[in-house]
Order: sequence, then structure tokens, then C-alpha cells
Amino acid sequence: MFPGPGLTSFQVSEVIEGFLPVSAQTSYGGDRAFDRLLAGAGKAAGVRVSTARAVRDLLRGVLGAPPGLRAEDWMALVASRPPVALKAQLGALKARMEGVPAEDLPPADRLPALRARLTAMGVDGFIVPRADAHQGEHVPASEQRLVWLTGFTGSAGIAVVLADKAALFVDGRYTLQARNEVDTARFSVQHVSRLPPSRWVAANIPRGAVLGYDPWRTTPREVARFAAACDEAGARLKALARNPVDAVWRGRPAPPLAPIHPLATRFAGENAADKRRRIAAGLAADGIDAAVLTRPDSIAWLLNIRGGDVANAPLPLAFALIRKDARVDLFIDARKLLPETLVHLGAAVTVRPVAALGPALDALGARKQSVLADPAGAPDWVFRRLRRAGADIRDGDDPCQMPKACKNRVELAGIRAAHRRDGAALTRFLAWLAAEAPKGRLTERGAADVLEVLRAEGRHFQGLSFPTISGAGPHGAIVHYRVTAETDRKLRPGEIYLLDSGAQYLDGTTDVTRTLFVGGGKAPSAAMKDHFTRVLKGHIRLAMVRFPEGTSGSQLDVLARSALWQAGLEYDHGTGHGVGHFLNVHEGPHRISQVPNAVALRPGMVVSNEPGYYKAGAYGIRIENLVAVRADGKGVGGRQMYAFETLTLAPIERRLIEPRLLSAEEKAWLDAYHQRVATVIGPRLDAKSRAWLRKATAPV
Amino acid sequence: MFPGPGLTSFQVSEVIEGFLPVSAQTSYGGDRAFDRLLAGAGKAAGVRVSTARAVRDLLRGVLGAPPGLRAEDWMALVASRPPVALKAQLGALKARMEGVPAEDLPPADRLPALRARLTAMGVDGFIVPRADAHQGEHVPASEQRLVWLTGFTGSAGIAVVLADKAALFVDGRYTLQARNEVDTARFSVQHVSRLPPSRWVAANIPRGAVLGYDPWRTTPREVARFAAACDEAGARLKALARNPVDAVWRGRPAPPLAPIHPLATRFAGENAADKRRRIAAGLAADGIDAAVLTRPDSIAWLLNIRGGDVANAPLPLAFALIRKDARVDLFIDARKLLPETLVHLGAAVTVRPVAALGPALDALGARKQSVLADPAGAPDWVFRRLRRAGADIRDGDDPCQMPKACKNRVELAGIRAAHRRDGAALTRFLAWLAAEAPKGRLTERGAADVLEVLRAEGRHFQGLSFPTISGAGPHGAIVHYRVTAETDRKLRPGEIYLLDSGAQYLDGTTDVTRTLFVGGGKAPSAAMKDHFTRVLKGHIRLAMVRFPEGTSGSQLDVLARSALWQAGLEYDHGTGHGVGHFLNVHEGPHRISQVPNAVALRPGMVVSNEPGYYKAGAYGIRIENLVAVRADGKGVGGRQMYAFETLTLAPIERRLIEPRLLSAEEKAWLDAYHQRVATVIGPRLDAKSRAWLRKATAPV
Repeated sequence: MFPGPGLTSFQVSEVIEGFLPVSAQTSYGGDRAFDRLLAGAGKAAGVRVSTARAVRDLLRGVLGAPPGLRAEDWMALVASRPPVALKAQLGALKARMEGVPAEDLPPADRLPALRARLTAMGVDGFIVPRADAHQGEHVPASEQRLVWLTGFTGSAGIAVVLADKAALFVDGRYTLQARNEVDTARFSVQHVSRLPPSRWVAANIPRGAVLGYDPWRTTPREVARFAAACDEAGARLKALARNPVDAVWRGRPAPPLAPIHPLATRFAGENAADKRRRIAAGLAADGIDAAVLTRPDSIAWLLNIRGGDVANAPLPLAFALIRKDARVDLFIDARKLLPETLVHLGAAVTVRPVAALGPALDALGARKQSVLADPAGAPDWVFRRLRRAGADIRDGDDPCQMPKACKNRVELAGIRAAHRRDGAALTRFLAWLAAEAPKGRLTERGAADVLEVLRAEGRHFQGLSFPTISGAGPHGAIVHYRVTAETDRKLRPGEIYLLDSGAQYLDGTTDVTRTLFVGGGKAPSAAMKDHFTRVLKGHIRLAMVRFPEGTSGSQLDVLARSALWQAGLEYDHGTGHGVGHFLNVHEGPHRISQVPNAVALRPGMVVSNEPGYYKAGAYGIRIENLVAVRADGKGVGGRQMYAFETLTLAPIERRLIEPRLLSAEEKAWLDAYHQRVATVIGPRLDAKSRAWLRKATAPV
Repeated sequence: MFPGPGLTSFQVSEVIEGFLPVSAQTSYGGDRAFDRLLAGAGKAAGVRVSTARAVRDLLRGVLGAPPGLRAEDWMALVASRPPVALKAQLGALKARMEGVPAEDLPPADRLPALRARLTAMGVDGFIVPRADAHQGEHVPASEQRLVWLTGFTGSAGIAVVLADKAALFVDGRYTLQARNEVDTARFSVQHVSRLPPSRWVAANIPRGAVLGYDPWRTTPREVARFAAACDEAGARLKALARNPVDAVWRGRPAPPLAPIHPLATRFAGENAADKRRRIAAGLAADGIDAAVLTRPDSIAWLLNIRGGDVANAPLPLAFALIRKDARVDLFIDARKLLPETLVHLGAAVTVRPVAALGPALDALGARKQSVLADPAGAPDWVFRRLRRAGADIRDGDDPCQMPKACKNRVELAGIRAAHRRDGAALTRFLAWLAAEAPKGRLTERGAADVLEVLRAEGRHFQGLSFPTISGAGPHGAIVHYRVTAETDRKLRPGEIYLLDSGAQYLDGTTDVTRTLFVGGGKAPSAAMKDHFTRVLKGHIRLAMVRFPEGTSGSQLDVLARSALWQAGLEYDHGTGHGVGHFLNVHEGPHRISQVPNAVALRPGMVVSNEPGYYKAGAYGIRIENLVAVRADGKGVGGRQMYAFETLTLAPIERRLIEPRLLSAEEKAWLDAYHQRVATVIGPRLDAKSRAWLRKATAPV
């Protein structure tokens, strides 16, 4: 969690630590006593929830949200300054509610129960996307229908259930994981780009069948694809008013409730009123009356607020309308808004319940207004409602996505500072690992925990930006491996160890991958060094490229791959994703990818540079730095040229490099990078780590 | 021209040379005498046109077609074996008709006349694309509305005329040329990707206005863009039944009539019946009843025929329907079909007039058949007609484009043979140029003529595949420069000379660019060498790349550019275009380009590799070889890998190379390529040229 304006997180944690620790042992004293406690605390404590019943209701939402950085964070939703006794009772009530096990169907019964429900609803199939209504990567517990139904926990996927068959579609990162997690007798696991779900539907749905979908969780672009597939097969696609999964998902958590804080302008670099006016001016120039915002990251950026409704990203789940006069309607469960956040939002932002969104769209339609919505990101429901209301719908990109992607000077300065802190934590960890790993006692999970502790010591730390990928030996080849109690294994001498991790800081988001060699008297094989060095060549070629205005990431992608291709090697994931400023670790609209993408790279965009190679059953290699697009002078004819500024600062494993494979230019880049790491990170380390870093950054 | 099956072009020219030469001096003896001559020649001569009036009508079409390789080629349309006297009279009649000057509006009056016509038709604007109904690069004289109206002669462009303004949109290759050719007071010249015509329309068309378009010469994809732009501006797009340009274009030539010949299977590698069955099986598998073919290159490929309706490509302008039972309806002016071609087409191909296309589409609709048409390549008219008829329209790619692009073994062998012949002609020319150019007397046009003469000596030669680009000094910087009597200039010592040329052979199409230095005692500047070597690095990096199955040309494009970008240089055209087999020198669906394109490169595809750099007012540099995609073993995990086989064989200017800029790998590629050129081309040369080649291909 992070403070409101004017209070650093360091100060906040000092204040919180001054409180009496809340013990889970304190027993709950009953609703009547609790009601009295709330009444007694009153105004002085800033109490905003007046009955035990309302607190219980609130707590259901709190339990549907991820835990905050500190156990007391959620209590701000009840009272601004809760007295010790109230905190103790709040803690006890939460513990009691957590202790009640959620009743649910056993996993094997879920697909049959859903099919029975579909039959009762008169449809022959249903699309189960991973997405919620916000179409983001991060989905709260209440929206994890795909996990509940299939067991698949990856960050992208979609299932289609028909009467006699069902399939789960995942991308190349997740094919191995999906086959491990999913009962493949029930769900055939498909590679989404080799057999897209719409093609599967076209080939498998019976003529005359009706395929249902949830218009809140499906975009018009997806609807169009599925509709065409159904049409081709002589079947029909139908929007369902209620999601049939919810009817059979007995243990479904409540929608999340986590406190929403303002983000100070000294972090954001531009105040929210200026952002609102900037976006509104763009709408007015395009003859648009209002834009529907359905992405929480857009809303967080626009209003300079951050929440905690999902894990790993400070998102406030909400919808919004921004009008051409810069006024905003924010559709949200108002219980999440702290008093200081309401003050921060100000009079130009009207807070309304989510249920008011439909009538607000109807009102736009009744006035025949031009309304912008993004057919690739907004729910089909929004378009259907606008169409029915008679609005003049303008398909277009979410107007906040591009300005959000192009970081301002303050954001970039914060991101650089966050990377210095993050690099110091990672380097301390790497120095420790170099000494500890060869002993053969360290496990994947233990290593990840140590790194998290070191990171958490950093100023402005707000949690991890994604679950750490800590994969030793063959686990490294599972691209989005997540260590669990069952899979945890030791790092063994002679093995390659892949570590992909990142953090959220108030001033920036980090994401870095290093691939290490666990020595312990063993030397890496020639193949390991060949593979690692080819990945490194790709990383360096991309890091060094200079390119003209108008170039997209798709155009640059091959630079990261061709050294691998030369040896018949390849990696089945993108080369780079956009990264937010204390927001999503994956953000658009730009990317560096084989998939065609016409979005030009612009100054201030942050993107990862992360080629890899994965040898199934043996090891995984990935080298990832974040980079920012920066101006790099003018080319001939005045053409604006760009280059990448590497943001991430941590040594790259020298023991896995085969120097003969590097060109003179590539060696020069690597040595200069390591020199920079030593100069910037060295002074931030203890003497022992600093001595290790000196060797780890020596010229190759 | 080229022979029917079983007769080589060499044999044909021997036969023709045996005839009495036709003299243009012979005077025409009058229609009555001519009618008698035709009747007298009769069956023995294979006469198929029986009256002077019909011959005159035919000749109007002949005059609308480009001249054949030999002056008598067109006479095959009148008689298979015309006696000498008939040939003389045919030649005299043609000379007489050619001698009558076409009356037409002066260029300055054309735009006002069109506007007056638009007003009379009740529309406020009109779209004038360069395309004809076949949407190809090559457009016959009768369809050159854009040239007639604007003066712009480039190979791609579109104009939009409104009541008070008009604009011409061209791509980066043509911006300089367009400003030279067009009256910019009447037409503002726009870079099509910076300001697409639809955006210009949205910004400039008045609210309430009606913008007309010709549905025969506009694709549904274009219609959709213009319709959206009109909608945005509150205007309306309207299909016009008659093209208003034709109403004011008094001197409009007749649609072209040139003889259509069969192409022997020993050149095509697959007989036409097999091709028809292959395409039909694909349609049947997709549940499609028929496909509309509107591209003459698809029809030429499918039926193994070649025509002469447009310059530089052996296209038979026609439309076709292929049905799932492999039967074909060919909609064409039957006068173009020689008797042997009718025999070759066989009973499964029904020849019908072009006017029968509409009723044929109506019949498909009446039977509710599924009809495939390409919204990116077929006229909007086809879709409108099919829709009105009630057909089940399936949008999809032209089914011949992909099989045509992937050359078979016989085609590839022919293409290699054509390149050996072409390379020998070019190398003889280069040796001659090296001796002749320094004298300072040679002009751009003179050089191009010598090269054409040398090429024409080659077996199977059928003409140039495009007008030679012969640009000395600053002319080289005009990307698609075409030398005329007015622009012709000398090649001066110390200058760079760019030569882009190619030919059509019965067994393949070539396209090669070499950039030469005109010595004459002068040395190239350091900048010239830097620029040339960076272009060469790009060419070599692309030539050397190995890539996995599924990779598109767009993904590879940056390899050809990054060495230029490093120095702030760039070129404003694609890196590579597909090339046909004795067909279009530019063919799809693949390309190597910055424009996103998801078409994967497949074995047998031929594509150019032609990075460049253009210093306006000084010189142009381009290095172009054709390459073919070939299998290159399996990668790790069994992944199919591909590489390029370089087809073009001619030395690359060593005097312009700065060896210090080349990596060891790049030098090795260049030396090996030159070694191959010396080995393959050397033995085909005279001793003097061979001696020159030895030096020109020495290691750098």
C-alpha cells in the first residue's frame, strides 16, 4: 500500500508500526458489541461503516481482493484512524470469516454442471474467456471462471464448451503448463495461434446449435470472429443475460474491495485535471462527445489514482465516461474510495455506482451523442447498449492508452530511480546467490523469497509486479513457470537457473530476467554457452538499434531472433511488452513481437527486451532488461531518429558467455553496460556484494 | 511474342524472318479490294475475320495494346497463315489508322470538363484510381484515366476530385516524379501513407456532398474506407453506373486486343487441367461452389496462357469463374484467342463474352451458391451484383495467388536458366560500360538501349519486364526515374549510375539493379562509399538470413535497413516484391516491407532483395538481386528452417565498397557470391568480357 499525497510510504510504515500489532488470537466479541464499538469510535476515528452487518458485507469484498502490503491496509475502508480496540475486532472478524471454508463443487463435477445449466438455458455451448469486463491481464478472484472450470491458471486463455467436447486455447508460453494443470480428457488443449478458438468452433459446432457468450466479458472484435465462425457452420451466436458459470459456481468470491489512494503529482508528473483536459481536447477535436473507459489502468492514469483490487498491479476496478468538457463520471463501488481520494478527485469527477453505467449510456444515446468506445477492449455489452440507445458509436482506441504509454519526464525520472533501487536489490541477491547456490541447499522458492525481502527494503516498494518465475534446470524451460510447494526443487551445481521478477514502486514498475549458472565446481556445457550467447546477441542487437520515427516494434523483432535462427533455434513468445508507470507490467499499445503491429515506437515508451531460448526438459534462458525509447538526433533529411535507453541495471551472467560468438560491436556494448552497472549500482551495495559485482562486470 | 507448344521462340523467329518484310510504304487498296483479299485467302490461310470493317474494328483494339515483340504479331488475330499480299495490306491499314491523330481535350481543359460532367451527373466529386477492373499494376491505354486527367505516369496512385479542390496521392517512390508531371496548382500532391485519400476526403468534402466512384475500378475494401470517411464528414459515397471520365475523354483508345498463346507444360511445370482440379479441390474443401477470378495473372497461371494486352507483362485481360467441379468460364473478347489456344483450353473451359459475367453471377445467386471473391482485389461491382443476386458471398483471397507464388521445380529451373542468360547479357553490358562510360559520351538512354539489344539475343526473350530505369547522377535519386528524350543526359566521370532492368523470358522473369561508378580518372567520395556499403550490408544481411517456417517478409525487412539507420539513412520504398514466372514482375501475396504483412514466406516464392539509398540532387544507390525461398534443414525441435537462394548473377560494383565497414561474415558472403558469378557467367562471355569479370569479382 502507498500513502496519499504528502506522506511517503516510509513515513506510513513508521506510523503503522507505531500501532499495537493486531493479533489473530483476539476473538470476535459479537455483532452488538461491535456496533457499539463503531458508534463509540465515531467521528474522531473517521468511521464510515456504521454496523457490523455492513462491515461483514465489506469484508466479503476485502476477502475477494488480494491482501495489501500490510495486513491492516483494508481497515482504511472502515475508518480513517481506527482505535486499537476497533482494529483488534476488525482483525478478529476477518480471521473468523476467512476461517469458513468455501463450499464448492469438486473440480470433476464442474464441466458437467455447466453443461446441465446450458441445457436448462436452451443453449448448446458457451465461451469462457479468462477476461473480466475490463479485459486486462489481472482478474480478481470473483472473475476467475476459467480457473474454476478448467484449472488453468495462466495469464491468457479461453475455453469453449460444447455439448460433447470442450477445448482450452493458450499461447506458446502456456502449452506445457496447461497440459499439466488441465484434465485433458475433458478439455483438449490447443495452441491459440495454430488453431484459433473461432476456427475450432467453425469445425466443431453442430449445424443449428446456439453458442452462448457473456457480452460483459467479450469484446465486439471477438464477437465478430465467433459470429462468423458460427455462421460458417450454420450455427448461431447468442449473448446471454446471465453468465451460466456463476449459476453453478457455488464458492464464488465477492467482487474485490481494496482502498483507492491518490497518486501525488510528484510521481505522476501531470495533475489529473490537466490530463482530463488533454484527453477531452482530443475528443472535441475529433467531434466526439464522450468516451467510454473500461480499462482500470486508463482510469488510474487519467485520475492519478491507484487501487488494490487485483494482485500485482495497483488497479482500481471501475468504468468511466469522459466528456468533451473534461468532466468524468466514475462508475465504481464507492466504498473503495478513501476520503482523501474523494477530495483529490474533485468536483469535475462524479462518483456513481456501476449499475448507473447503463442509464448513462442510454442518456448519451437519447441525445444522439458521438461516443467513442474501443472494440478491441470494451465489452460487447457497452456497444449493444449504445446501439440500442441510438448513440453515434465511434470505434476507436481507448484515448488514454497512447498518452499513458508515453511517459513524461517525471515518470521517466521515477522509473530510472526505481530501477536503481531494484538493480541494487537484485545485485545483492545475485552476489548472495553466487556464494549460496553452489552449496546445493537453496530451492527455487527460497531464492525467490530472499529476493523479495531484499526488494521490499527499497524505498517506495509496493509489492511484486508479478509472481516471481524462479526456475532451476528443466523448470526454466516452462516459460511462465510458477514455483509451488509441489514443484519446488533445489538449484543443483552445473544447472542453469532462470529468474524473472519485478516490483511495483510508487515511482515505477520493474521487470527483469537474469539467467544464472549454478557453479559448484562444474562448468557450463558448450551447448549452454552457445545458446546463452545467441540469446545475448539478440538482446544486444535490439538494445543497440537506431531507428527512424514511425518504426514499430514488430519491425525490430527479428533483430532479437536472427542469431538464434542461424542455429535453428527459436522462442515461442514476444520479444518485448510495454510496461506501465506504477501500473500494469504488461501494457500496450506498443510491443516488440512477430505479430504484425503498426503502432510506432515513440519517445517515453517503456518496453522490455527479452529474447530467450528454452530446451524442454533441460533449461530455459532469457535475458531481459527494460528500455525506454529516446530521441537520438536527426538523420539525413531531418528525419527524427530514436534509440533505446536501457533502464535495468544488473550484471549479465559472464560464465555463460562464449566470447568468440560475439562481434566486436556486441562485446563493446556488453562491456559498456557492465561498466555502467558497476558505476551506478556499486556504491549502493555492501562491500562484499560490491567486490562480487566488480568481478561480475569485468570486460569479456 | 512466343510460340505455341512444341515450337521454340528461336524457331518462330526463323520462320518469320523467312517471310517477306512488311513495308509501311505499301498503300492500302481500299475496303472492297481488302474484302476480296480476305475471301481469297480463305481457309488455307486460316482467315478468321472476313471483312475490312471487322479488321478495322479489330485494329482499334490492336492499337490499344502495346506493340508485340515483332511487328507482325497482331496479324495472327486475323489469320493463322496470312499470305504476303494480305500481310502487306494489313500493315498498310494499320499504318493508316495509326497516322490519324487522336483528337482530345488539351490537358488544361480536362479537370474543368470532368467537373462540369460531375455537376451534370448530380455528384460533387469523383474518385479516379489508377487501377482498371483487374487491379493490377499494368493498365492498358484505354484505362489510363489517371494519366489523362493528371499527367501522372507512375505505377501507383489515385486522385480525388472535388468541386473546388483536387488531390493526387502517390507513395514515396513517386513524390518527386508526381511534382514534375502534374500541375500542382490543380492537384495537390500527397504522400499516400502520410495522408491517405480517405482522410483527405474526410477533411475536405463538404457536409451533404455526394462523392461518386466507379464500382468496376474500386475494391470493396477501398469503398469501405471512403464510405467511412464520407460518413464522418456527413457526406455520401455513390457508385456511378458510367465513369464520368469516359464521357469527356474524347481520344480514349479501344480496349486492347493482343493474341493469347498457350504456355507449354515444359515451361509451366504443371498442366492446366491439374491446376484447375487443384484449385477446385481447395474450394470444395472450404464448402465453396465457385470463385470469381478477376486478376489476369491468376487466369494466365491457372489456364497456362499468356497474352499481350498490357506492356511488360504477358497478361490476357479477362475475368473467370472456377467452379468446385474444376470447370471454368472464361469471360473475354474471344477475338484474342488463337485457334491453338482454344484447342489448348479444352472442353472444360467455356469461352464467353465479358458482358456475360453479370448474368453468370446472377445465376450463381439464384441457386444460392457460395461464391468466393477477394475484397482486396475484385471490383466492388462483383460484390454488388452477387449481393443483389442473393449469393452467399465468401470474402477470401484469390485462390490462385498463393499456388502461383510458390513456384514448382520446373518453374524454378526455368527461372534459374533465365537468370543465367540474363546475367550473361547484363555482365557483357557492364564490361562494355566499364570501357565506354569513362569516355563521357554515353547517355542514359543509349546505355539502356545497348542492354536491351544484348538481352534480346538471349533464348526465350519476350521483351522487358518493365521500362529500364537508367539514372545517372541526380537522376538516380528519382526512385522510378524513366529516361525520356527531354531528360536524357550523359554519364559523367565521377558519377554514380543506377541501372534497374529486367526481362520476360518464356521460362522466367528477371529484375536486377546494379549501381555503378563512372570512373574516368575520378575516385568515388567517402560518402558515396559509405552509403553504397551500408546498402550492400543490408542486402547481404537479408541474403544470409535463415528463418523458421511461418516467418513473413515484414519480419525480415529491418535486416536490410538497420545498417543505414545507424547512420541516420533510410529509403522510402519496400525491400522486396514477389516476382512471377513469365508474368508480373511485381506479384503478391508476399513481400518484404515495413508495412505489416502476415503472409509467411514459403519454399519456391521468388522475391527481390533491393535496399537502397537516395541522395536527392546527387545520386541513387540500389542493389537488387532476386532470391527464391528454399528449405534449409530442420531446426531444433524439428522446426522447418528456410533460407534464400540468390538467383541473380552479376557482379556488384567493387569500386564503391568500403571494406572496413563490412564484417567478416559479410565479406565472406560477397566473395562467395562473386566467385559463383565468375564460375557460372564467365564461360558464357566473350574473352574480353570474361577478363573484365575476373577482376570485377576478385575478393574484397
